[in-house]
Amino acid sequence: MTQIFEKITRSVVPSLDKVLGKPFAVLDDGFVRVVDYLGSDASIVQAARVSYGKGTKKISQDRQLIRYLIRHRHTTPFEMCEIKLHLRVPMDIWRQWIRHRTANVNEYSTRYSEAIDSSHRTEQSAWRTQSPHNRQGSGEYLSPAIGRRLSRRESELLNLTGAVYAERLLAGVAREQARKDLPLSTYTEAYWKMDLHNLMHFLELRMDPSAQLEIRQYAAVIGREIVRRWCPLTWEAFEDYSLDALTLSAKEVAIITAVAHGKRKEAVQLAVKHEYVMEKHGEIKPPLEGKELEEKLERMELPIPWAMK
Amino acid sequence: MTQIFEKITRSVVPSLDKVLGKPFAVLDDGFVRVVDYLGSDASIVQAARVSYGKGTKKISQDRQLIRYLIRHRHTTPFEMCEIKLHLRVPMDIWRQWIRHRTANVNEYSTRYSEAIDSSHRTEQSAWRTQSPHNRQGSGEYLSPAIGRRLSRRESELLNLTGAVYAERLLAGVAREQARKDLPLSTYTEAYWKMDLHNLMHFLELRMDPSAQLEIRQYAAVIGREIVRRWCPLTWEAFEDYSLDALTLSAKEVAIITAVAHGKRKEAVQLAVKHEYVMEKHGEIKPPLEGKELEEKLERMELPIPWAMK
Amino acid sequence: MTQIFEKITRSVVPSLDKVLGKPFAVLDDGFVRVVDYLGSDASIVQAARVSYGKGTKKISQDRQLIRYLIRHRHTTPFEMCEIKLHLRVPMDIWRQWIRHRTANVNEYSTRYSEAIDSSHRTEQSAWRTQSPHNRQGSGEYLSPAIGRRLSRRESELLNLTGAVYAERLLAGVAREQARKDLPLSTYTEAYWKMDLHNLMHFLELRMDPSAQLEIRQYAAVIGREIVRRWCPLTWEAFEDYSLDALTLSAKEVAIITAVAHGKRKEAVQLAVKHEYVMEKHGEIKPPLEGKELEEKLERMELPIPWAMK
Amino acid sequence: MTQIFEKITRSVVPSLDKVLGKPFAVLDDGFVRVVDYLGSDASIVQAARVSYGKGTKKISQDRQLIRYLIRHRHTTPFEMCEIKLHLRVPMDIWRQWIRHRTANVNEYSTRYSEAIDSSHRTEQSAWRTQSPHNRQGSGEYLSPAIGRRLSRRESELLNLTGAVYAERLLAGVAREQARKDLPLSTYTEAYWKMDLHNLMHFLELRMDPSAQLEIRQYAAVIGREIVRRWCPLTWEAFEDYSLDALTLSAKEVAIITAVAHGKRKEAVQLAVKHEYVMEKHGEIKPPLEGKELEEKLERMELPIPWAMK
Repeated sequence: MTQIFEKITRSVVPSLDKVLGKPFAVLDDGFVRVVDYLGSDASIVQAARVSYGKGTKKISQDRQLIRYLIRHRHTTPFEMCEIKLHLRVPMDIWRQWIRHRTANVNEYSTRYSEAIDSSHRTEQSAWRTQSPHNRQGSGEYLSPAIGRRLSRRESELLNLTGAVYAERLLAGVAREQARKDLPLSTYTEAYWKMDLHNLMHFLELRMDPSAQLEIRQYAAVIGREIVRRWCPLTWEAFEDYSLDALTLSAKEVAIITAVAHGKRKEAVQLAVKHEYVMEKHGEIKPPLEGKELEEKLERMELPIPWAMK
Repeated sequence: MTQIFEKITRSVVPSLDKVLGKPFAVLDDGFVRVVDYLGSDASIVQAARVSYGKGTKKISQDRQLIRYLIRHRHTTPFEMCEIKLHLRVPMDIWRQWIRHRTANVNEYSTRYSEAIDSSHRTEQSAWRTQSPHNRQGSGEYLSPAIGRRLSRRESELLNLTGAVYAERLLAGVAREQARKDLPLSTYTEAYWKMDLHNLMHFLELRMDPSAQLEIRQYAAVIGREIVRRWCPLTWEAFEDYSLDALTLSAKEVAIITAVAHGKRKEAVQLAVKHEYVMEKHGEIKPPLEGKELEEKLERMELPIPWAMK
Repeated sequence: MTQIFEKITRSVVPSLDKVLGKPFAVLDDGFVRVVDYLGSDASIVQAARVSYGKGTKKISQDRQLIRYLIRHRHTTPFEMCEIKLHLRVPMDIWRQWIRHRTANVNEYSTRYSEAIDSSHRTEQSAWRTQSPHNRQGSGEYLSPAIGRRLSRRESELLNLTGAVYAERLLAGVAREQARKDLPLSTYTEAYWKMDLHNLMHFLELRMDPSAQLEIRQYAAVIGREIVRRWCPLTWEAFEDYSLDALTLSAKEVAIITAVAHGKRKEAVQLAVKHEYVMEKHGEIKPPLEGKELEEKLERMELPIPWAMK
Repeated sequence: MTQIFEKITRSVVPSLDKVLGKPFAVLDDGFVRVVDYLGSDASIVQAARVSYGKGTKKISQDRQLIRYLIRHRHTTPFEMCEIKLHLRVPMDIWRQWIRHRTANVNEYSTRYSEAIDSSHRTEQSAWRTQSPHNRQGSGEYLSPAIGRRLSRRESELLNLTGAVYAERLLAGVAREQARKDLPLSTYTEAYWKMDLHNLMHFLELRMDPSAQLEIRQYAAVIGREIVRRWCPLTWEAFEDYSLDALTLSAKEVAIITAVAHGKRKEAVQLAVKHEYVMEKHGEIKPPLEGKELEEKLERMELPIPWAMK
C-alpha cells in the first residue's frame, strides 16, 4: 500500500466549544446543554467529496455544496455529524420527543432513584384556549382572572401529588410503583444523542407552528443556539430549504401559474376540478386543503381567485 | 424470462385468526389484541431457504431449521413476519414500552381528543415494597393495613386529577395544555406494529424477572397468548435458546468446568483471579457478578466452591 | 372492562390480490413481484383516526384525510402498511437499493449456493454517454457502430467471468471465494419487506430523473404497478405532493413573487444578493442553484428576469 | 434554576488519539483507520449513572458497572459512544458489511468518479476448498499447483475487466453504466460511522469463526486494534460475555447437569426426548444441534454420554 494519507485531526468547532456544558434555559425549570459532538460543516463537505475521488478538482465552494446537498436531499453526509445533549424536560413533552426513534437515549430512571422534585408550573397569564380552527392546537390566552384560578388549582394538585409520592416512599413502597401517579408535568432528564440529519428532521417538525408551544421552545433553542453555532452553513441552508420553504403540489403549481398570469377563471376551474374548492348552493368554499392554498397565494402576494369580485 | 414461479398465496395462520380482534385483558383496564399480521413459521423457513437456491435439496426439517436460525442469531428471516397489535396501557408503562424503537406506532392523541377517562388503580393487596437487593425492583407485598391507606390516598389523588382536568376543559383550556398534570397511571391506547425479530427482543427484555411487574404482564400475554399461536416453532426455539437459556462468560466456563470435575481449590483460585469473589479479612465474599455465578451453579445443581467446608 | 370492540378482519385489497405472485419484468432478466402485504388505504385512515377517540365524528373523507397526512408529513399512519416483494436485480443496482436501511431483507446467498447464472446484458442501442452537465448521470445514446463493439466486448467479458467461476467450482474452490470476481451485472434475488412510508421515500429518490436509469425502471414498476393498486388514494396524494411537487426556498419565494408581479429589477437584485446569480465582467451568470431556479420559473411559465432584454 | 452543573469537557482517549488516521492494513490493499470519535468508557459509565440521580453514592467501580451492563444487556449506554472509520474494502466484502443497517455511510461513488483501480487478488497459496461440513464455509487450502493455475486465471480475468472498463470510458460511456461489469473484488472506500453498541453486534457476528475469512480480518482489526484502545473496559467485558461466551439452551442445561453428575442414562434419555440425538437402527446419531452440544460438552471437558461405552 503506497497510498498517501492526509493527516487527520478530530473535528473542533470553537464557536460551539464556547457553550459546551452551558445550560440554555427553557420553560420554568428545563434546559438543554451540549455535552459532546463529532463533526462540523467541514466533515459534511469531506463526506460528500469522498464521492469525487482523488482526481477531482474542488469545483464547488463549501456553501454551495452544502446547499446542493440539502435541496437534493443527499442526506447521508449530514449523518456524519453527531451531537450529544443533556436535557431537562417535563415528561409530557418528553412523550412527544421520544417518538423520534433514531436517537440514542439514556433517561433518568425513577425506578432506581427518587423522581426529580420539580414540575412544570403554568403562570397565571400562560393558560391558552383551545384553538377554534385546529383540533390539536391552542388559541388565545385566557383572562387573568381565570388564569389565577387555574394556577391556584394547579398548585393544589401538585402539592397533593408530591405529598402522596412522599407518603408512598415513606411507607416503603417500591420506587417503580410509587411513581405511578406522578403528574406528566414532572421534569425528567436525559442524555440524547443524534446525528445532524435526523436532528434537522426533528427541528423541522418541532419548530413548526403546528407543534405544541412547549416543545417548540426546546426545538428553537436547539436550532438557533446550538446547531447554528455548530454548523452555520448547514443551518442557513436548512432554514432556507426546509424551515421557511414553500412546497406546492403539482395541482397547486397549475392553479398558481394561472393566477400569476391573471387567468382567474381558469384558476377557479382547476381548483374546482382538483377539489381545492367546492361549489355548494352557488357559493364557493375551500376545504382545509384549499385554505392552505389560500395561505400560499397570500405568501406570494397573489390574489385568491375565488374570492375576487 | 422463462423462469417458473411458484404460486403465491398470502400467509394465513388459523390458530391466530381465531383470536383476531379478541382483547386479552391485562391489569385492571388494559388489553392487547391482534389487528393484523403478515407471515408465519412457514415464511421464516421460506426466507431462510432463499439462500439455498433452486438446486438445493430440502435437507433440514422446518423445526430444525428454525432452531438453527435462532441459536446462530440468523435474525433476518424473523423480520419477514410482522404483527399489528392494539394496546391499552397506562402511560407509566408506555414510557418503557416506547423505548423499543423499531416499532411503528400510532398513539391516541390527547391533543386531538380528551384523555381516556381511566387510570390504572392499585388494589389494597398489590402495593409492593422496595427490593432490598435490587435498586430498581420490588420486594414483598405491604401489609393490608398499609395497603388500604395507600389505595385510599390513590383514590383521593385520582379524584382530584380528574376534577382539575375537567375544570380546565370547562374553562376552555386547550387540550394540549389541560393534560399537563394527568397522572402517569392514565391509560393510553395505540396501534403498535413490529417484526417478529424485534418483538422477540422486546419479549426477552420485558418478560425477564428484572422487568417491572406491570410490563411483564403485558409481555407475557403477547408471548404466550399471541406469538405462541402465531409462530409455534419459533416460540419453542425462542423459549429454549433465549428466555430460559443460560449464558456463561468465558471465565465462568473455566470456573464451572473446575467445579464439575471436583477441583474445588482451582475453582476458587480462578474465581479470585477473575474477581468473581474477593478476599477480605480472610473471608471470601462475592460481589454481584459472583452472586450471579452462584445462581448459575445452583441451576446446574453444582456446589458453590467458596461456600464449601 | 365493558368496552365494546369493533369486529376486526385482516386487510384485503382485491386489486392487489389479482397480481399477487405475478412477476413484473424489468431489464432483460429482472422482475418484481408481490409476495404478501399488510394494510391498505383503509388502515392508514384507521391509524390516523386512533387520535380522534370515540366521541369524534368522522368529519373528513378518507381522500382528504390521506392528502392532509401526506402534505403535513404525518408519516406514522403510512408505517401501518407493509409489503413484501420478491426481486431479481443486478448486483450493481442492488448496491444502491440496499442503502435504504429500514427494509427487511433476505438475499440469495452465493456462499450457500452457486451464483445465479444470469447477468444484465446491454443491447447495442442502449449504451449511454456521460452527461456533460451532471457528473453522476448519463446523456445521449452512443452510435450503433460503437454500441455493437461495446456489446461484443461485454459478451467476451461475461463469457470469461462465467468460465473462470465454473473452473473454480470445478477445482473445488469454496463458493464464498469463487464468487470474488463475479461481475456486478450478475443477477441476485431477494425478499424485500418495507413499510409504505419508507417505500414512498425510496420511490421519491429512485423515481427521480437524477436516479440511474436501471433502478428508476424498478422503482417505476413498484410505484405504478404495485403501490397504485395497493393504496390508490395514497398513491395519488404522493404523486401530487411528492413526486411532482415543487419546493421553493424562502429566497426563491421572494424572487418568484417579484417576478410574478412584474418587478424584474427587484427580482434580479434579490437573486444577486442571495447568490442565485453572479455578476462577472458585466455578465449575469447563474451557478447550479440559479439554473434550478430557472427551471422552476419555466415550470410556472414565468420569465427569467436576468435573461430579459 | 439554581442547579449546579458540573464542568463538561469533550471526551478524549489518548491511546486512541495515537492511532488517529493511521491505516491498519487488511488484505492486499485494504485498510481501516479512525477518523473521529465521541465518547469513551467514562461516558458509558456517566450515561449509566444518569439513572442514579444526585443522591446516589458511587457504589460500584467502573469496571464492575460496565461488566454488569454488558451481561444484562443494558445496551443504551454503549450507544453514547460513536466512532467514524475510513475503510477500503473489496465490494464483495462490502456487500456483507453494508447489511448492518444502523451505520451512517458515505461510499466512494463510481457514478461520480472512475472506479478505484485496484482489486483484491488471491495469492497462490490462499485458495480454499469448500467446507465439507458447512454449506457456507471454507475448508483446507488447495495445493500450490492448483493455486498457481487459479491465480493465473484470476490475473487474466482482472486484466480483461480492467481493459474493458477503460475502453468504455474511452468510448464515452457514462461512468454509471461503464462500471456494470466490474468484478466484485474491486476495492471501494467509505466513511462508516457507528455507535459502540451496534459496533459490538457487528463484531460479534463478523469475528465469529463462521464469518467469511476476509470480513473476519477486518473485524479483528476493528476489535483488537481500535475498540480495545478506545474503550478497554468494554472490550474486556465484551470478549468475556459475548465473543468467548457459551450459551446453553434450557434443554442443554438439563442434559449437561445430568452429565456433570455422572447420570449418563438420564442424560441420553433427555437428549433423545429433546431430539439432540436420534435413534435409528439401534444407533444413536446427533443431528447438527446435537453435534453443537457435543462441542459444548467438550469445552467443559465433560464426556459425551451417547458416545460412552
